[in-house]
Amino acid sequence: MIKVGIVGGTGYTGVELLRLLVVHPQVELHAITSRADAGTPVSQMFPSLRGHVDLSFIHPEEASLEQCDLVFFATPNGIAMQQVSSLLDAGVRVIDLAADFRIKDIAEWEKWYGMSHECPELVSEAVYGLPEINRAQIAQARLVANPGCYPTAVQLGFLPLLEAGLVDTSNLIADAKSGVSGAGRKAEVGTLMAEVSDSFKAYGVPGHRHLPEIKQGLAQMAGRQASLTFVPHLTPMIRGIHATLYAPLQSDTDLQALYEQRYAKEVFVDVLPAGSHPDTRSVRGSNYCRIAVHRPQHGNTVVVLSVIDNLVKGAAGQAVQNMNIMFGLPETTALGIVPLLP
Amino acid sequence: MIKVGIVGGTGYTGVELLRLLVVHPQVELHAITSRADAGTPVSQMFPSLRGHVDLSFIHPEEASLEQCDLVFFATPNGIAMQQVSSLLDAGVRVIDLAADFRIKDIAEWEKWYGMSHECPELVSEAVYGLPEINRAQIAQARLVANPGCYPTAVQLGFLPLLEAGLVDTSNLIADAKSGVSGAGRKAEVGTLMAEVSDSFKAYGVPGHRHLPEIKQGLAQMAGRQASLTFVPHLTPMIRGIHATLYAPLQSDTDLQALYEQRYAKEVFVDVLPAGSHPDTRSVRGSNYCRIAVHRPQHGNTVVVLSVIDNLVKGAAGQAVQNMNIMFGLPETTALGIVPLLP
Amino acid sequence: MIKVGIVGGTGYTGVELLRLLVVHPQVELHAITSRADAGTPVSQMFPSLRGHVDLSFIHPEEASLEQCDLVFFATPNGIAMQQVSSLLDAGVRVIDLAADFRIKDIAEWEKWYGMSHECPELVSEAVYGLPEINRAQIAQARLVANPGCYPTAVQLGFLPLLEAGLVDTSNLIADAKSGVSGAGRKAEVGTLMAEVSDSFKAYGVPGHRHLPEIKQGLAQMAGRQASLTFVPHLTPMIRGIHATLYAPLQSDTDLQALYEQRYAKEVFVDVLPAGSHPDTRSVRGSNYCRIAVHRPQHGNTVVVLSVIDNLVKGAAGQAVQNMNIMFGLPETTALGIVPLLP
Amino acid sequence: MIKVGIVGGTGYTGVELLRLLVVHPQVELHAITSRADAGTPVSQMFPSLRGHVDLSFIHPEEASLEQCDLVFFATPNGIAMQQVSSLLDAGVRVIDLAADFRIKDIAEWEKWYGMSHECPELVSEAVYGLPEINRAQIAQARLVANPGCYPTAVQLGFLPLLEAGLVDTSNLIADAKSGVSGAGRKAEVGTLMAEVSDSFKAYGVPGHRHLPEIKQGLAQMAGRQASLTFVPHLTPMIRGIHATLYAPLQSDTDLQALYEQRYAKEVFVDVLPAGSHPDTRSVRGSNYCRIAVHRPQHGNTVVVLSVIDNLVKGAAGQAVQNMNIMFGLPETTALGIVPLLP
Repeated sequence: MIKVGIVGGTGYTGVELLRLLVVHPQVELHAITSRADAGTPVSQMFPSLRGHVDLSFIHPEEASLEQCDLVFFATPNGIAMQQVSSLLDAGVRVIDLAADFRIKDIAEWEKWYGMSHECPELVSEAVYGLPEINRAQIAQARLVANPGCYPTAVQLGFLPLLEAGLVDTSNLIADAKSGVSGAGRKAEVGTLMAEVSDSFKAYGVPGHRHLPEIKQGLAQMAGRQASLTFVPHLTPMIRGIHATLYAPLQSDTDLQALYEQRYAKEVFVDVLPAGSHPDTRSVRGSNYCRIAVHRPQHGNTVVVLSVIDNLVKGAAGQAVQNMNIMFGLPETTALGIVPLLP
Repeated sequence: MIKVGIVGGTGYTGVELLRLLVVHPQVELHAITSRADAGTPVSQMFPSLRGHVDLSFIHPEEASLEQCDLVFFATPNGIAMQQVSSLLDAGVRVIDLAADFRIKDIAEWEKWYGMSHECPELVSEAVYGLPEINRAQIAQARLVANPGCYPTAVQLGFLPLLEAGLVDTSNLIADAKSGVSGAGRKAEVGTLMAEVSDSFKAYGVPGHRHLPEIKQGLAQMAGRQASLTFVPHLTPMIRGIHATLYAPLQSDTDLQALYEQRYAKEVFVDVLPAGSHPDTRSVRGSNYCRIAVHRPQHGNTVVVLSVIDNLVKGAAGQAVQNMNIMFGLPETTALGIVPLLP
Repeated sequence: MIKVGIVGGTGYTGVELLRLLVVHPQVELHAITSRADAGTPVSQMFPSLRGHVDLSFIHPEEASLEQCDLVFFATPNGIAMQQVSSLLDAGVRVIDLAADFRIKDIAEWEKWYGMSHECPELVSEAVYGLPEINRAQIAQARLVANPGCYPTAVQLGFLPLLEAGLVDTSNLIADAKSGVSGAGRKAEVGTLMAEVSDSFKAYGVPGHRHLPEIKQGLAQMAGRQASLTFVPHLTPMIRGIHATLYAPLQSDTDLQALYEQRYAKEVFVDVLPAGSHPDTRSVRGSNYCRIAVHRPQHGNTVVVLSVIDNLVKGAAGQAVQNMNIMFGLPETTALGIVPLLP
Repeated sequence: MIKVGIVGGTGYTGVELLRLLVVHPQVELHAITSRADAGTPVSQMFPSLRGHVDLSFIHPEEASLEQCDLVFFATPNGIAMQQVSSLLDAGVRVIDLAADFRIKDIAEWEKWYGMSHECPELVSEAVYGLPEINRAQIAQARLVANPGCYPTAVQLGFLPLLEAGLVDTSNLIADAKSGVSGAGRKAEVGTLMAEVSDSFKAYGVPGHRHLPEIKQGLAQMAGRQASLTFVPHLTPMIRGIHATLYAPLQSDTDLQALYEQRYAKEVFVDVLPAGSHPDTRSVRGSNYCRIAVHRPQHGNTVVVLSVIDNLVKGAAGQAVQNMNIMFGLPETTALGIVPLLP
């Protein structure tokens, strides 16, 4: 059994981790921390967990996290970097679902996240937890930086094209749409239902924190710098990301075969038949990324459609996938969830 | 292994049955029939099932359903009554998710469903599949009439009150609200998203087919006729039923204790702490019924709040629960799903 | 021209008042106050008003509200009672859209609103602004207490029955459903889209502040105390209230004719043909209340369906209707809005 | 008074035309036709129109449309082309809200719409009804081809860039998102609420009928062929289109000033302040198009955000705007609607 702790369990990533972990046959939940809600039974805050979680939130200083085999950080950005070092020293492995260890360039990270990095020495050691690229390193990692939701959908969509060197990387476009759970469980006017339901808008067009993370990944795939225009949008749905990707094709190839071959062994990446249009509900609640690749009107622009559940493959599910890899378990353990449709 | 057939698998009840059955360790899917879509891979119609269901829809006459141990009818009303008899003769057990065998009074059934019953001789044998009332009979049944969605939420909400004889049964009210999946997967203007989203309405106030089914159940619980005003409403959500029940209290008692005791051994009925207000998302995708009981302003009216997922405890999940009972399996097999929240 | 001021214009009631007033031919907007957002152009906070409102929010102390003919309070409860007196002294008439002057029994008000009333001497003078009952008094009023949203839908639904003395007032039930804009434009986790979309729940069953307001109105109509069970629900839509009302019929009558006659001269109350089921979208953005009356299964329970737009007839629209009455204008001025469907 | 007829009034475009026309001071509604629903009162099908429309749907052959000054066709594609000729001969002016007269290249039209054009001789005479480009011709037109919803949002977004010759027209991208009312009021499984709510997907990526219409317009603006990748998406909201446009910038300029100047005199095109992100609700129910122009990260890609209400500026509102122009009325007559927010 893997003894697991969760730091910061009161957000959507936290409750989603719990949904997955309580049915994981190899996981023993040791502690779920929250400073503000210490003492509150987890199932009181999240009635969906009644009968599945008996723990109460506990203050982090009383949680004995150093007794865990693995600690998930489901905290706001900037928390994990303060606590990871001592946990690693105690032999605990860590998966950070926030952004603290995702970007290798410390100065770039500090620019986008507006704070000084308090643990720069661990950034280079941290493994970026996208299993479809870094599976081997994840297996050995002490510290995994779990990818962001947009970065997961966008990178998996571009990956075969960039690895194969088929497109002009100086003009990539990612038009991405997210459900509102991506904004987190925070008291804000901007994501009230009366504000965002039955409406649609872009946001962060001048610059979004996921841009440098995606560009770092694309550059690694392509072996050279990639220029990306990234436009995120808020969609009136709870879960789901739909990334519509555009790339200028430089040489002719069988795109469908390219994608199918690249992901043939990836259980959580599903390349749809030619001509398909994945909807986000087809992955709702599951760890799948479904992808369709198009070349409209036989032109020079490749269009890739990539969908995930932002809370699963875009956060908690990918974290559990990484945990499975780190502990030598079958990658699908506790992740064999059939999407909820309708 | 239980060899299972599904007749009529292209509706929401069908895809939901499949979602549950594909992870059931004791079930082998034998055939899923559809006249209109014979030949179409199931996972083409429902991409959520990609990787989980390899079967194609098959014409019922080619499905060899008599080889099954159990056949689910997920068909429109009036189909099962034509086919059940020969299946039973072949030794196949049957769970009908439609209404054909729910109402014992044939004339009453024919009045509400507007057709002649073609198999009245089996109606009396059929067991009404509400495990919390009829568990023992279900275990022995050849033919189970799976309850309707509204009737499940309403009956489980009223049950402790009526069994205990605490309320005046001449003036019961069930104000029920359903998500739109309850209307089925049929091409109709009335349930287009542009018609029903961001709006709310009652329907069927003069009379709804679930009224006689509920009244039959209430009468059985109370040991006498019950007079019920039943008003269903269409709610702009996909899944979920919220039944708000009103009953005139005739004698004082500890209502919270009454409910907790009645359902103490029922794994799928969850009585919430006093003062609670269950939301439908707290059962989304799961087989739970969550119930809260109130006595507002210490008056004489008991208010019961009862929520289910109409496609799970209100249809496919309850059918699987019945199957588990019929075949001697733990009742929670394949039903240990944690609700999807948010 | 009526010189109008709005105190507290940053909530949904405020923006809705502006939507209506900017097209009102007899209104001149003098000032819109906000402490927190003083200096911000109104159309910056509400881009829907671009080109229609040139004012910026102004600090209330700089607003010279005493120069107005009429001031609307679109503030939280407890604000108007501090400021109304001096405005009245200055000859300004006032419509309070909050609850400060709705309940005649000061002790009852203080119990439900949890504060001391700072202006009890004006409560008896204040006219309850439901035009269908108090039109004549409204015309003369200095101070109008604009009704709450639920109270408007519920009272208009019960009115003909209670005035006619046809029902047993000891057992009235109002099962009411509201869109989320009713919760206001406040930063709260509980009304985030990810929390309340695609879900449904009751709230405030033990007691809701609109209960005493409704009971006061029902008692006035009936000429005696009324016992009401009031259960509000949160519905995943932006606007709209649907009240489903239940009352025990004591004598036979033509209910359809009763309702049609009572509201024959009321331009904003629309009695639908027998057998109808109004949906909330049929009044979206308009000042109508649409009502249908049923007697299901010829039983003794009358069921009334009453729908309004909570922000219009339930708040800002009714306030403008009251203003029109107070200033001798045609009641429909600026309120001839056709509902937005779909 | 303009005597107006509407052919095909039972869809969303029809009811929206009625919403606008019933408050138009210069319009007299002569007839609203429907073959299937002849005899049904319009307000029975659309209760939102109760009290505003007294007409019943009438069979087209009984409608005496030749007595009208203007006839709107709110019909499926392929109907207007059969009837326009005789109306024009009778001196009636026509606005077709369908696609029959939008595309000048008959062969191209026939390819995309899958039928033979029955009235090719009128295609060249027809004026494409985008007032911001063709105002003068519209004023004189006998026959106006009202633009499609996507084409309106996309063309208004690209217009300043293309007229100024600032971008490489060989690589334009329009990533467009539409509410479900764009799919029309047809009984189809694909747009049931249970199918499309709480989900998001692209459709028509290989080719959508609005592509040739948009390309024709862009070519006219640019004075040369334009290559466009157009990807429409279905969004879980009722109304609204959000077009996110991408174009490679070829020369430096003040984009904000360019847009503001181009639309300075256009009352229905609102260029937002630099850095803005329009949401579709900011135009809900109104005839506005709101536009923001961005140059993210000072790169070479211009990003334009353009939002409209698909049923208003994208259909019925633009048709009324065209009518106003054709009949010499102020362009804003009956279109001074303040958007409905929230």
